Amino acid sequence: MKEALKEAGKSLATGDVPVGCVIVKDDKIIARGHNVREKSNSLFGHAEMIAIQKAVKKIGCWRLDECCLYVTLEPCAMCSGAMIQARIKRLVYGSREPKFGAHQSIINLFDAPFNHHVQVVAGVLEEESSRLLKDFFKKIRQQKSLNKTIDMI
Amino acid sequence: MKEALKEAGKSLATGDVPVGCVIVKDDKIIARGHNVREKSNSLFGHAEMIAIQKAVKKIGCWRLDECCLYVTLEPCAMCSGAMIQARIKRLVYGSREPKFGAHQSIINLFDAPFNHHVQVVAGVLEEESSRLLKDFFKKIRQQKSLNKTIDMI
Repeated sequence: MKEALKEAGKSLATGDVPVGCVIVKDDKIIARGHNVREKSNSLFGHAEMIAIQKAVKKIGCWRLDECCLYVTLEPCAMCSGAMIQARIKRLVYGSREPKFGAHQSIINLFDAPFNHHVQVVAGVLEEESSRLLKDFFKKIRQQKSLNKTIDMI
Repeated sequence: MKEALKEAGKSLATGDVPVGCVIVKDDKIIARGHNVREKSNSLFGHAEMIAIQKAVKKIGCWRLDECCLYVTLEPCAMCSGAMIQARIKRLVYGSREPKFGAHQSIINLFDAPFNHHVQVVAGVLEEESSRLLKDFFKKIRQQKSLNKTIDMI
């Protein structure tokens, strides 16, 4: 998860919400991704989608049933659905996502009776992940406030 | 939906499950997609994901809030989640998907309290869509049976 947090830091360079992800197979990181939705203007720019795409390319098959996915934020329904489709073995995530979270915040996709079940571990390095996000949104608000002040001068 | 069915037919050429999708904005089709998961060996090869990606590219923004998506088969959680993320206005689909369907078969993602709600119309040209799928799987079974007989000779 520390590696996923490092990935999250990379999103900051492009003004994207800091979310990072790594995919592990046989105790080795086989794919990494960080959120680039704004940078790439792509709906599929979420960290998990990018890491899954890379892992599929590396393994040469879209079934990732021996892989564990670590992500700093509770995944949305699209990313959770992609994990179920990819037959990801285990999902480990950090902090909650109250607006789009599809494990415990809005809906629990992982308990639905699909023909594949992803094991889920929540709250790992939650504080670090949460702090990263809070700092990001604080800066955004400060920037907006500063711009407003400049406009008023 | 007839255009989506035409798209579905294209999947057959690559041995993919026939599913087709079109996205409409201002009464015009702005994007098309058909299932190419096997052909492309991509997890994101579902018809809806391809059509959404094309629509985002065409519009130049990942918010498709004035768009309606027509697809021949009940979408999975990944594609349904992508529609919610993209703020799709309305989803119209044909037949049910009993294993992965995320509207009425396994779970209903569209009634979950996300901050965007997609209107859903189900069962449009259901019979035609269902027949296309049944014919496809019948051929697959016949081919398997033929291969078995050949192996036994």
